[in-house]
Amino acid sequence: VDLARAKGVRAALTDALREGVRTGRLAPGTRLPPSRSFAADLGVARNTVAEAYGELVAEGWLTARQGSGTRVAPGAPGAPGTVTRTPRPASAVGSAPGPAAGETPHHRMTGAPDVSGFPRAAWLSAARRALAAAPNEAFGYGDPRGRPELRTALAGYLARARGVRADPERIVVCAGFVQGLMLLARALAADGATAMAVESYGLRPHRELITGAGLRTVPLPVDEHGARTGDLDGLGGVGAVLLTPAHQFPTGVPLHPDRRAAAVAWASGMGGLVLEDDYDGEFRYDRQPVGALQGLDPDRVVHLGTASKSLAPALRLGWMVLPEHLVERVVRVRGVAERQSGALDQLTLAEFIAAGSYDRHVRGMRMRYRRRRDQLVTALAEQAPRARVTGIAAGLHAVLRFPPGAGAAVLRRAERWERGMAVEGLDAYRYADPSDEDRDALVVGYGGPPEHAFAGALEALCATVREALAEIP
Amino acid sequence: VDLARAKGVRAALTDALREGVRTGRLAPGTRLPPSRSFAADLGVARNTVAEAYGELVAEGWLTARQGSGTRVAPGAPGAPGTVTRTPRPASAVGSAPGPAAGETPHHRMTGAPDVSGFPRAAWLSAARRALAAAPNEAFGYGDPRGRPELRTALAGYLARARGVRADPERIVVCAGFVQGLMLLARALAADGATAMAVESYGLRPHRELITGAGLRTVPLPVDEHGARTGDLDGLGGVGAVLLTPAHQFPTGVPLHPDRRAAAVAWASGMGGLVLEDDYDGEFRYDRQPVGALQGLDPDRVVHLGTASKSLAPALRLGWMVLPEHLVERVVRVRGVAERQSGALDQLTLAEFIAAGSYDRHVRGMRMRYRRRRDQLVTALAEQAPRARVTGIAAGLHAVLRFPPGAGAAVLRRAERWERGMAVEGLDAYRYADPSDEDRDALVVGYGGPPEHAFAGALEALCATVREALAEIP
Repeated sequence: VDLARAKGVRAALTDALREGVRTGRLAPGTRLPPSRSFAADLGVARNTVAEAYGELVAEGWLTARQGSGTRVAPGAPGAPGTVTRTPRPASAVGSAPGPAAGETPHHRMTGAPDVSGFPRAAWLSAARRALAAAPNEAFGYGDPRGRPELRTALAGYLARARGVRADPERIVVCAGFVQGLMLLARALAADGATAMAVESYGLRPHRELITGAGLRTVPLPVDEHGARTGDLDGLGGVGAVLLTPAHQFPTGVPLHPDRRAAAVAWASGMGGLVLEDDYDGEFRYDRQPVGALQGLDPDRVVHLGTASKSLAPALRLGWMVLPEHLVERVVRVRGVAERQSGALDQLTLAEFIAAGSYDRHVRGMRMRYRRRRDQLVTALAEQAPRARVTGIAAGLHAVLRFPPGAGAAVLRRAERWERGMAVEGLDAYRYADPSDEDRDALVVGYGGPPEHAFAGALEALCATVREALAEIP
Repeated sequence: VDLARAKGVRAALTDALREGVRTGRLAPGTRLPPSRSFAADLGVARNTVAEAYGELVAEGWLTARQGSGTRVAPGAPGAPGTVTRTPRPASAVGSAPGPAAGETPHHRMTGAPDVSGFPRAAWLSAARRALAAAPNEAFGYGDPRGRPELRTALAGYLARARGVRADPERIVVCAGFVQGLMLLARALAADGATAMAVESYGLRPHRELITGAGLRTVPLPVDEHGARTGDLDGLGGVGAVLLTPAHQFPTGVPLHPDRRAAAVAWASGMGGLVLEDDYDGEFRYDRQPVGALQGLDPDRVVHLGTASKSLAPALRLGWMVLPEHLVERVVRVRGVAERQSGALDQLTLAEFIAAGSYDRHVRGMRMRYRRRRDQLVTALAEQAPRARVTGIAAGLHAVLRFPPGAGAAVLRRAERWERGMAVEGLDAYRYADPSDEDRDALVVGYGGPPEHAFAGALEALCATVREALAEIP
């Protein structure tokens, strides 16, 4: 008990002295009282003071020199010329500045899922089973491809749900689609590739990432049948192409069977690589899902999937199904800094898939998004028949096409929304030279709002569209 | 029910056809029977066959041309010249090749913690509370610095346990020390820095990472008082220094108070930066922990911590406490690909710290490691008095110093161990020009073995050392 008390006293004393130095009350060079007399003043044991001094000397706050006593160190933080920064008040904690400059807040992202649907209870019980079953080695540094439990579960799921020919040995778990794309672009660049073709509509950050990895991007035109993969043969120096075959992002068309075949034929003919971004292949409404392109040629197509749409972006879990010759190269490019995603979430997702919870959850969310899509189409047809809704066979977004001038008018008004759906001009996704038609088309993300807020968000959209159309002759 | 049955039949049919094409039984160009007659043969509805054909056409397995019927597509996977890869048998799944080339398996890493001590039950209950309390937005794309709950919990813990002056606004959560180092090196390089000083003993992968980020490394000699930070002034062009002040890795000396002061004085005098790798600052045995260097000058010292030693490497969680002016720059360098660690683990760790479980766990593991260290020292003193044990005031490893020639003899024998402690020559950590003395010093990691295996591992070490010493005159 005495020892505990002494420790408490010493801690209080060191804190007080640190604080004194920090605030400048104890200026650098100030001589502190000898431990014996200071202890007497404080009514504590001499050792307690001596130990506190020793600790602060070890930490560099104080100096102790024979003959000169204990002094505040010359370089200590309160020294003149050093700006003493007081921590922000606690109330500011948590009011983080949100996304960094240039990033879009979640409710403004046109591909955002409804994270209020995250299956918390089922996830927790999968975590319980995963923690109970995990071998000790799962807590150490693991296989750079990710946990074998998850790769095995994914191989089964992807074969069944997406027609992917997935061998667990050729799956690499990553922190989401974007990390996967980065690793692939770097691996290709390291192998001497110089350019990657991208769809002429797509996400600018993806293109920037490819450029950042050292590859030129070359646009591949997108029309009503998807990307014109037949044009690939004419693109000089292009060794890879990034496609969204199931549901072109953001125009929403599925890649035509002939175009699928052409992509694979190009890759196999010239030794190229197709990167299949299967971001929302699970959310198809009109019929059976379009199978993954990868199934056509697993040696030429990389299948990239993510839990960001189906579960939550915050999990930071995605996966790549790779041709065998790419596995080692991607792992090597990844290096030690990004060697794996957190193992506990990986084990939990493996359990979640194995228990059928993933299928159940995807089914439930598919119904939810489909209902929203139907309501969106119906409401616009009733309230704004001049707006044409396209790209709606799948996914979490639609493209609304307006008469000339109306697109910009809707956008101007939508900017004032506090919450609601994500709305952006199609021109923002254009590789280059957006047309007037692009400017009058809006990408509307209906996935993002939580379920209880969807009706209000839809109402706000319709009202905005009505007002904007009223301006247009 | 009929619909469900039809769906099941269709699925079975598409699977069988895909399998036929895959294995080459259905060669490219093969004409399939018309849906009507095929349906009659199979005794199913014609629509079921037509839909199966349609699906496979959409996926590119088959082609359907007016007048030519339905055929296996020319580019389909079974085509001649395409190597059909059969998945490895299920028994191979999970027998992953382990760490990639050049990586060290966990039980051979000298800094490895005992992951069998992972607090599964306490972690699960923290996860339960975290999942229950998390706002919906926690499941979306979050603050690139990490969850505010965790940054707040860390700020409190680091101030209390390590004397870090930690404002949650200046903490960036990352995937471990190595990722933090990479981000800092990239941020410095982007800012025009050209070189970073490193301790003359340390981990080669860290040096390679710095070089990979575009900075030259310059060695700073390490002696019995730690790194000679007084020499920093003489190193031209060096804008930053990476130090392990609490417990030099791997020699094990704490940085002398004068050296601590000199590092901070150098940084403040020339506008440089000190990177404090506090990898095992919590596992100090001889007295109160040495406070973090960062406390001396939070504007010049970056404090880097990790859950890899204290909890488990598999969590992939670390943190940086940054000077204010570096926060935005590090976030920018991180970019979208590595924007954050998994939010659920972050929320769970925040709960785990707030509930006092982290302190409790660290205390328990500190006792465990201390006991091992004591047993190691005692056993070697008894069985191999010619081996000198150093660097043992803290951490999960020790340095054993041997008479000339004995170090190599121990290493040769230890290579045959299947499991046991991690053992490596000190020369492997040397920046350049290892001395004979380095070759006769071994870094022994006693943290790695699970508790039940420690006694055996210690016995193996002692027997190996005895045998090796018996060879030496």
